[in-house]
Parts: sequence; structure tokens; C-alpha cells
Amino acid sequence: MTKKLFILPLLLLCSLLAMAQEVKSPNGAVQVKFYLQNGQPTYEMSYKGKPVVKPSHLGLELAKSKYADNKEKETDLMDGFSMAGTQTAAFDETWKPVWGETATIRNHYNELAVDLHQAASGRNITIRFRVYNDGMGLRYEFPQTDKLNYFVVKEERTQFAMAGNHKAWWLPGDYDTQEYETTTSKLSEIRGLMKAAVTSNASQTTFSPTGVQTSLQMKSDDGLYINIHEAACVNYPTMHLNLDDKNMVFESWLTPDAQGMKGYVQTPFNTPWRTVMVSDDARDILASNLILNLNEPCKLEDTSWIQPVKYCGVWWEMIVGRSTWSYTNEFPSVQLGVTNFAEAKPNGTHAANNEMVKRYIDFAAKNGLQQVLVEGWNVGWEDWFGKSKEYVFDFVTPYPDFDLKALNDYAHSKGVRLMMHHETSSSVMNYEKHLDAAYRLMNDYGYNAVKSGYVGDIIPRGEHHYGQIMNNHYLHAVKEAAKHKIMVNAHEAVRPTGLCRTYPNLIGNESARGTEYEAFGGSRPDHTTILPFTRLQGGPMDYTPGIFVTKLSQWSNNTSQVNTTLAAQLALYVTMYSPLQMAADLPENYEKYDDAFQFIRDVAVDWDDSKYLEAEPGDYITVARKAKGTDNWFVGGKCDENGHLSVIKLDFLDKGKKYDCVIYADGKDADYKNNPQAYTITRKVVKKGDVLKVQQAKGGGFAMSLLAK
Amino acid sequence: MTKKLFILPLLLLCSLLAMAQEVKSPNGAVQVKFYLQNGQPTYEMSYKGKPVVKPSHLGLELAKSKYADNKEKETDLMDGFSMAGTQTAAFDETWKPVWGETATIRNHYNELAVDLHQAASGRNITIRFRVYNDGMGLRYEFPQTDKLNYFVVKEERTQFAMAGNHKAWWLPGDYDTQEYETTTSKLSEIRGLMKAAVTSNASQTTFSPTGVQTSLQMKSDDGLYINIHEAACVNYPTMHLNLDDKNMVFESWLTPDAQGMKGYVQTPFNTPWRTVMVSDDARDILASNLILNLNEPCKLEDTSWIQPVKYCGVWWEMIVGRSTWSYTNEFPSVQLGVTNFAEAKPNGTHAANNEMVKRYIDFAAKNGLQQVLVEGWNVGWEDWFGKSKEYVFDFVTPYPDFDLKALNDYAHSKGVRLMMHHETSSSVMNYEKHLDAAYRLMNDYGYNAVKSGYVGDIIPRGEHHYGQIMNNHYLHAVKEAAKHKIMVNAHEAVRPTGLCRTYPNLIGNESARGTEYEAFGGSRPDHTTILPFTRLQGGPMDYTPGIFVTKLSQWSNNTSQVNTTLAAQLALYVTMYSPLQMAADLPENYEKYDDAFQFIRDVAVDWDDSKYLEAEPGDYITVARKAKGTDNWFVGGKCDENGHLSVIKLDFLDKGKKYDCVIYADGKDADYKNNPQAYTITRKVVKKGDVLKVQQAKGGGFAMSLLAK
Repeated sequence: MTKKLFILPLLLLCSLLAMAQEVKSPNGAVQVKFYLQNGQPTYEMSYKGKPVVKPSHLGLELAKSKYADNKEKETDLMDGFSMAGTQTAAFDETWKPVWGETATIRNHYNELAVDLHQAASGRNITIRFRVYNDGMGLRYEFPQTDKLNYFVVKEERTQFAMAGNHKAWWLPGDYDTQEYETTTSKLSEIRGLMKAAVTSNASQTTFSPTGVQTSLQMKSDDGLYINIHEAACVNYPTMHLNLDDKNMVFESWLTPDAQGMKGYVQTPFNTPWRTVMVSDDARDILASNLILNLNEPCKLEDTSWIQPVKYCGVWWEMIVGRSTWSYTNEFPSVQLGVTNFAEAKPNGTHAANNEMVKRYIDFAAKNGLQQVLVEGWNVGWEDWFGKSKEYVFDFVTPYPDFDLKALNDYAHSKGVRLMMHHETSSSVMNYEKHLDAAYRLMNDYGYNAVKSGYVGDIIPRGEHHYGQIMNNHYLHAVKEAAKHKIMVNAHEAVRPTGLCRTYPNLIGNESARGTEYEAFGGSRPDHTTILPFTRLQGGPMDYTPGIFVTKLSQWSNNTSQVNTTLAAQLALYVTMYSPLQMAADLPENYEKYDDAFQFIRDVAVDWDDSKYLEAEPGDYITVARKAKGTDNWFVGGKCDENGHLSVIKLDFLDKGKKYDCVIYADGKDADYKNNPQAYTITRKVVKKGDVLKVQQAKGGGFAMSLLAK
Repeated sequence: MTKKLFILPLLLLCSLLAMAQEVKSPNGAVQVKFYLQNGQPTYEMSYKGKPVVKPSHLGLELAKSKYADNKEKETDLMDGFSMAGTQTAAFDETWKPVWGETATIRNHYNELAVDLHQAASGRNITIRFRVYNDGMGLRYEFPQTDKLNYFVVKEERTQFAMAGNHKAWWLPGDYDTQEYETTTSKLSEIRGLMKAAVTSNASQTTFSPTGVQTSLQMKSDDGLYINIHEAACVNYPTMHLNLDDKNMVFESWLTPDAQGMKGYVQTPFNTPWRTVMVSDDARDILASNLILNLNEPCKLEDTSWIQPVKYCGVWWEMIVGRSTWSYTNEFPSVQLGVTNFAEAKPNGTHAANNEMVKRYIDFAAKNGLQQVLVEGWNVGWEDWFGKSKEYVFDFVTPYPDFDLKALNDYAHSKGVRLMMHHETSSSVMNYEKHLDAAYRLMNDYGYNAVKSGYVGDIIPRGEHHYGQIMNNHYLHAVKEAAKHKIMVNAHEAVRPTGLCRTYPNLIGNESARGTEYEAFGGSRPDHTTILPFTRLQGGPMDYTPGIFVTKLSQWSNNTSQVNTTLAAQLALYVTMYSPLQMAADLPENYEKYDDAFQFIRDVAVDWDDSKYLEAEPGDYITVARKAKGTDNWFVGGKCDENGHLSVIKLDFLDKGKKYDCVIYADGKDADYKNNPQAYTITRKVVKKGDVLKVQQAKGGGFAMSLLAK
């Protein structure tokens, strides 16, 4: 009898704790429930009463590993849990980003943390939810104990059970590339469309016929915009999603290492946040700061040296194929420290030469562009790619026709800086060997920004672009750069997860299909109406817009065509938010259309405010932004292949002020295929409340500057 | 008929070229023949008419790889060859090593280079032989052509067909450790003894029941001493040997990478030399400079800063277990940058503390030791091992009780330097991230030598200690160190192959079972009578001799016993050649035997001449060396468990000079097991031609100083 007296309350407590815990967003629209289902952590999420995530399990499958606490056998962190306690909290803070779409960002959420105990292993873990008005994040937290010190992840088993067969904008899941076209389909159609979606890339490793990448944008039949991504991916592999397309349940699928393992964890440790954004208004998804808010505050004490930048560069003419990164064709291949470049026969097509770079510097100086990127300045480009060559670049030795000191001096004399370029060819062990010297050289010559690149398969061989070791590398490069007051713009690196809040010198990333693909056969006209919903959730993209001569055959042997109008290229400076924007076309092409180029000269790269005016993924995006520290606004609108009529109510302008408005719009007969360069420039004076109608052509767009009088 | 006229001479030429090419050593004792056997490159080698290597094939099996010239299929470089030409040359040069066993080294060989053409692939390769009086080296050379630019090695197929079932001193072939006891057996017995030979190690990967390491010392029934090793292993995996024990044919077995590949080659490229040393006098094997001679001359312009060094250090007491590298036991594990060591509770056993280090500095200063190694000075030791922890050390942050500046200042004030310690825990990606900063810290505080360590499994995970990427790492660390005027002594790194000629700041390596194993259960008494034949062929070993209190239980809880006498420990300073010698025991142990310690104070670490007086692998080695820049000689003799009577004829002394001779010999009843500390010190005056008899005890040895009067 005594026994029963003690047992009953315990059972009651257990049963109480097994009951669902609820947490709602500050405005009540988003609701998350958590409970144990036969000992399995389970959650569900709704928006305004509609299911967003149906009951879904949480947990991690652990690997048997000699590096783990439990060497011989390992108990998965999947089930057998009981609740040990819960904590709730509310948080409301406004913080100032170093650069961004708005001057301040509000971080406003309600939190639920559930402590779980697993009797079989004696381990405790915590699952933490933060619920915002536009979605939620959840993560696993592993406190340090003797029983939970080291473990190896076989697979994370975080489920996202969808409530229907949504429309999705998806990329094939891949451990090594994100440079696919987006496929738009129902979830049930992914499997059938996968093969066609996997186009070739310099490095690629797909893993499942229903595997897709994040950020994954979806739309439900009842009009909910749902987006799954992750935030603050640090010391952990990147997450993909694998779809059970019978039940429409996504499950996390981490990037493995060369041994097939998916994360080496030492406690205390928190996983990245797994995020689900939701709204019934697509504009809310674009305006969301949920990913940034789930990252740690800035860890750099001095950020005064971090400056948004507009730049041009010696780049597009190599991408298009008129000139080369390489200096000589004399050898089947080159070896650094062996090949004598000074005596090698020049190939005559090397673009990064003194004369050419000076021309770009002059162009930048004349047009108010702060920097000039120069690719192909350093030795090693002759056989940089596809050979898994370890010592491919040294990042400090220029070609004979690139005078490192003279060109930097010349640029500085014109008020311009050169932008450094570190293509690693994904020989990461080599890059890490040279990183310190490379950054020091930048300091010596006055560079303060580097575009880095990770084309091709990773060395250490067998590792993947988005594995734990590589994610640690990318962050290492950013943190080391900060010590040298260098801004980083990493291409082909892992898709961002908001780490630019913590390390704002991570000023850009590519990590998606950029403008270069327009020279490789083209991207679809709807491409840039999707990217802000997907790729841009994690951080800005160096999309390199501004291609005015869209038919490349006009000046090269390249038969590709940029699948937008010229006006649409202007729109991208506003619709594709980035504190780093390139004017990517050749100076001579800009000189032909100098009146349109005025917009690129004028447009800001840092903002005090942003208003998403219209948005539908894959169809159109229209946004207005207020330039940092001014009363000026810039508006951009970009649409898909169907065209779009934008009706813009200027109610974001300051009351009582007048604005000189310049509208760069598609010409009447413009369309991206046959008449891309037809544009009109209209000037008028406008005020708050005025309504402007702008017709966007097929594959077109518009840009608008509103300069306060 | 016209056709025939042309074909016949071609056939004649082919047949001529298919005939054996011969090359002999300068003294004619060593002969090497090369020919094609059905298109397969084939060689054989003899010594004074006796077969050393019977007809053996040469070639490489290539991998199908997307990184190779031939992506879809690949033609092995094994057969189908015709001879395209041969060149012979003679070479005789004397060079001066920066440090060494002798003041000058003669590089004297005859050379044969055979150019081979493979019709099926259109590729040309060269096989080069260099034949010395004490052996030969051969290597593959790959000139750069469009048809031979990039390939991936599946396996190198270099055979060494032995002429009999030799006696061999062998270590189990292993991709990750060389720290095995040597097994002595007939070749035919290897398979049966392998299992017992594979003792446990922190990181180990065996590959075959008849796989062994180089340098492999053998002895034939007819008295030939044969040794197989390699020279100048650069940008290539380390070679092991796999024995076909039916036919007694060894074949090369390279170390694979994480993908199982065995070398990524870009032409022009030369493989390391595959070496076979031979003599009918064991002393010639010890005196051989063949490995050094096959390496490139010194590539450092200024070598004035490279100085041989005698040192002591805070080390043995941790190895034995009386104190610890770690500072605190408060946490299950630590995280750099997170754990607050300043506020952590000290464990009270941390040896690298200010007081202890000062005591070692005082001891070094008093006894003329130039440096003091301090292990465990930097944060991270609490969980440094066995967890595959990536960010395990930062190499710059001291524990709270180690005052980096004050201790270096104190040492310098006493004319002593601290020796840096970089344990990497084999987290090589981490070490490379921090290497530059670590070396710069050394420069800042006045360190000029680093002992580095590679305990545990490699990160990048799946790579091995002796793979291509790791061999590139070790050399990178040495080359970068040279830029900072830092000498490197790398432990658990790849076994050396003579690269210290090219980079003489590589002043030492462990790469074998060192003295530390005497505290881990012991090494056999014959251990150090074998190492000079095997491990030391490639370069000096930091064996850390000088353990005077051989029964460790006398001052610790460790029940191991050093399996030599005290006198034998002195012998090692002469028999185990190294420009870097540790006095490894505790200062208080030396203070107890200060009369014996006099030899360690006196003995040189750099030499003008060396005379191997007696040698039989596994039995005894006696060597006399003339100290650099002096007329003083030091003699050491070391034997196995059977004891040995050394009869030393002093005919190496200068005629007409007299020498104060001090003989440190085993006491009459000494033996390594029961009476290791019984020694006698005898003084006499000697001259050239005198004969000394010294009895070495079981597991004993002797040392002798001969100081010119």
C-alpha cells in the first residue's frame, strides 16, 4: 500500500508531463504543441488554426563509433523519453544590424523549452522552440554530462509532416552544389521530376529521388506560404530534406563526411535551428527576420570597417568566354614554384592585365563604384579545375602582367579599392595552409574584401561542400578575415543560415545559381522571383546583376542569352537584397546605355527601411527600400515570363515631401527573348499617396529612384 | 620488299633495346640489370655475384578516376612497353651536411635511365637507377606530355624478389603507426607471427598478414645484409611491402587515402626512390649515406640558425604517470574559447607549471643543456585524445599556471631556451588553421624548435598518417617552420626518408617505438640494436634516452621497467645518432647519479666523423664519433639481452695525440633486469692503437669519452 501511495503521484506527474505543452506566437497566429508519443518527442504547428506541420517526430539516430562515449553500442536519441521539466519565456528586443534591409530588427518571440530524460541511456536533452508571428524555430540542446559528452550522429530525424500536397519551389538535394534551377511542382511530383532537375555541375552528389534543399518554399492549396530552412548552422552538417511522398512528411537528411558520418558532437552543444516560416501573405515571408533573429548577436567588437559596397570587375568577359583567367597555354599543366611564368609565352587572352584592370579602375572611379574585383590575377589558373589538384593556388603570386603594387596604388589614387579574389578550387587544405599569408598580403596592399570560390570537388577528398568540416572551414575563413578587417563574399560555399548577423563581415555568398548561368545556357525568367523566397532567407547573395547586353553574341562567341530585359536587370539591385552589389557587365556595354546605368550609379546598397509591395513566388516581387541615412527611396519590380502590371501606391513616402522620380521601365514592345533592350526612362515629381502603374514585360521588370527634393 | 627493308632494322633495334641494360656500382660490387620481359619492365640486382633481387617487375596500376587524363578507362603502366632509349652517367660529388655523422658525405654512383614507350596509351615514362657501392635506388619518372598529365595510382607494383628465405627484422605494415616492437623471424614466418606482432596503438590500420614496413632489414643465409626502404618521399604516399611468402617476393603497397586511392599524380613527377642496400658487412649498412644521397641538396639558403641541441624537459613524469598534461579534472571535457580555465579548479597534478619549469630551466642551465621542452603548457589537454575532436588545441593559449613571457625571459636570462610543443592530436586541419599563428608566437617569445605530435586518428577523418595528404602536411610544416627559422622534431609523423638533407631544419622525428614505451610495459633489450639498421636509415630519431632510474616504481606507481642498464642508456647518445638528444629522466634522478650524468654533459650532438666498429642487427652496435670541430671522440656500445664483449681498437684516434679516456661501463654483476644501476667509471690515458675491452652486461652497454689532451 505504501508503495502505491508513492507510485501514483509519480505516474500522475509523468502523465501530466506527457500532456501537450503549447506555445503561441506573440500575436497568437502561430501555435506549436509538443508532447511525447510513446516516449517519442512529437510536435505540431498551426497558423491561424490551420495545420502547418502535422504531428511530427523529433530525434537523432546515433552512430556506433570509437569516438563516442558509448563505443560498443549506442542508444539513439529517438524514443524512450520522459519529460523532466518545461520552461517558457517571452522575449522582445530590437537590435541594429551592421547592414541590412532595415535600420532595426525586432526579435519578438515566445519560447518553450522541454527537458527530456532517456532512462535507457541516463541522458538528458532539451528541445527548445521559439515561436514568432511569422513562424518558429526548434533545436536540440545537449547539456554536458558524463553520460552525454561525445557522440556521433548517424542521422538527424527531425520530421516536418506537411498538411497537404503543396506546391513547392525546390532544388534537388545535393551535398556539393546549390546551383540548380528551381523546379516548381506539387510535392507528389518531385520524384518524377528529379532526374530532369539534376543538371550537371562541377561538383555534385545527389542522394535521394525525393531529396530537396532548404530553404524550401511551399504554398498550400488554402493559400499558406510555408518555408523550411535552418538558422545558425555552426559546427554541424547542413540539413537537406527527404520527402516521404506517400505521407508528405519531410525528414532531415544531413550531409555526411568522407566516412558517411553526419556530425561529431561534443557537449555542451546546440544544433542549428530548424525553421518553419508561415504566412497567408507571401510578402511576410520576404520581410521575415526569423532566420537572423535565431542567430547569435554580433560577435565583432569593432564593425566600423564593414562597409556595403558596389563594385565592378574583371569577370564577366571570362565567364562569357572572350578572355581567360589563365595567362599561358604553353603547358599541359602548371606547378606552382616550378613553372616559370615570367618566361612562359602569354596566351594573349589573359584579362587580369595591367591595362585592362586600369580601365576598370577608371570606370569604377568615374561611376562611383567603390571596388574593382579582379579574377585571374594570381598564378595557377591554367589547370585549376577538375584535376583534384592539391597545390593549385598560393593566393599571393601575381601573373607577370599584373602589377600588384602599381595597380593597388593606382586604384587608391582614384579613390577605388581592388577586391581580392581567392578561388580555392575546393582544395581547402591548401587554402587553409595559405590563408593567413593571403590575408596578410591583402592588408599589405590595402584590400578589405575578398571574393572566395569553391568550385569543384573538395580536398580533403571524399568530403562534401556542406559537411561539418567544410562548414567549420567557411566560418573559420570569416572569423580569421575579421581579425584582418576583411569582408568575405564566398561563392560555392554553403548556403547561408543567418550567420552574417553574428559575423557581419560575411557580406555575401553565392550559394545558388547566379548570373553566370545566364552565360552557361541561361536561367529561367522566373528565377529571380523565387530566390528571395528561398536562397535569400539565410543571407544576401552576390547575384552579380546588371547585364545590359543580354544577347552575349553581340560581343562574344557565346550564344547564350540573359533571360531578362535590361530594365529587369536594374530591378535586381532592389529586389535581390545584398549589401554587396556588382555592376557585372563590361564598361563598354554600360557606356552604350549610360542613361540606364544612371540607376546603378544612384542605387544604394544599405537601407533604413524596406517595404515588400507585391510578391508571389515564381511570379513577381516588388519592393521599395529607403536608402541608409537619406530620405531617398528605390523601388524594384521583377516578374516572370508572363509579365506583370505593378500598381504602386507611394504611401511609404514621407508626408509633405516631394520626390524626383525616375522610372526605368520596359519599353512597350519589350520582352526578354526578342526585345530585351527596349526601355523607357520617365521622370516626374511625386508625393506620398500617389499611385504609379508600371507594366513589366515578359521576363521584364522595372526600377525607380525617388530622390527627396 | 621495300617494307621489309624498313621493318627489319626496326626489329633489330627493338630487339637490341629489349636486351638487358646493365649498370654497376663504382667499385663493381653491386650490379643492376634492366630489361623488358614480354613488355614488362624487369630488373635484377646482385652483390659480388650473389643475387640480391631476383628478376622483379616494375610498374604502376592506375585507377579509373574522373581526375585523370583518361576518365573513362585507364591503361596501367605495367606492360606493353618498348624501350625508347637509355642513358648512362657517372656521378661523384662530396657535399657538406648542415649537421650529421660526418663532416662531408660522398655521393658516388653510376646511373642508368631507361626511357620506355607504351604504345597502347602513347605514354612515355623513364625508370632511373642509381647504383652505389652499398646498394641502389630506382624510381619512376613521368615527363609531362598531353598524354601523361594527370593520373591516379591504384597501386604501385614494384617488386623485390628475394633470393632466399631471409632472416628479417620487421614491423607489421600499418597505415597509422610505426610504434611496434620489431619481430625477428624468417620471411616464411611472418604470416604466423603477424597477429602477435600487432600490439595495440592509439591509431592503427594494418592491411595484410604479410605486410611489413620499411626500412626492412634482412640477412641472407649466405651473410648478405639487405635493407629495403625509400628515399625522398615527397607528394606521394608512403610505401609498405607486402610479401608473397610462397615465392619470397615483396611488392610495394602504398598508403591509401580516405577514398582508397594511392596517389594523385601531376606530371612532371618522380616517385620516391625505392632503395635496396646491401653488404656482407653489417657495419656498411649503418654507415651508408645512400638515402641521404638520393635526396635533393639543401634548399634553405641560410642554415646558420639550425643548431643541434641537447635538451631536457617536462615530459617523462607525465609519461610515467606521476603528473599530467592537463590542468583540471573539473569537466567531462573542455572547449577552447568556452571553458574558462582561469576559474577552473586545478587538478594539482599539472606538471607544466611555473615552479616546475623553472626547476628544469635551472637544471638545464647548470648542466649545459641548451633547451627545455615543456609539454602540457597549452590549454586543451583535458580531452585531447581519442574523441576525434577537431578544435582540440590552439597552440597559443597557455594554462593559467604557465607564464609564457616570464618563463621564456627566465630561461633566456640563464642562457637556455624553452622548446615549443605542438601536440596536434592528429587534428591536422586544425593544426594547419593555426600553424602560422603558432609559429609567430614562437618567434615572438624566442623559441627556435618545436616538438610536434600526431597521436590518434587523423582529421580529415579517413585519412592515414602516411598518406599523400599527410606527407604533404608534414613537409609543409617543416617548410613553413624554415621561414620562421624554427627547427622541427615531429613525433608520430611519417618515417623519414632522408628529407632532412633538403630541409635540415627537420632536425628529428620519432616515427618508431621510442623510450616512452619503456613506461608502457617496456621494449625488448635488443630494440636499440635494431633501430639504427631500420628506423634511422631515413633520418635521426628523437629516442629520448638517458633514463637512469630504470625501475619506475622507485618514484612512481608505474610498474614498468626500462629494459636496459644505466650504462646502456649512456651508450644510446652515441649509437642512436641524432642532432637532437634529450636527457629524458627527471633532474632529481640525474642528481643521484651525477658522476654518470657527466657523460651526458660531455657528449656531443654533432660530428665530424663516425666509425662503426662492431655491428650485428639485434645483437650489438659499437660506434665511435668525433665531436664537431674538436679532436674529442665519444664511443658507445649497446647490446641485446645476451651481453657482449667489445674489443675496441683505438686506431681511429689521431697519431701522436693523448686522450683522457673515461669509460662508463656496466658493473660486474649488472644486468638489465635485476641490477641495472650497477656501473663503473674508469679513467685512463690512451693513444691511437690501444685496445680496450669492455664487457657489456645482459641488456647493457657502455659509453666512453676520449678528450684530446
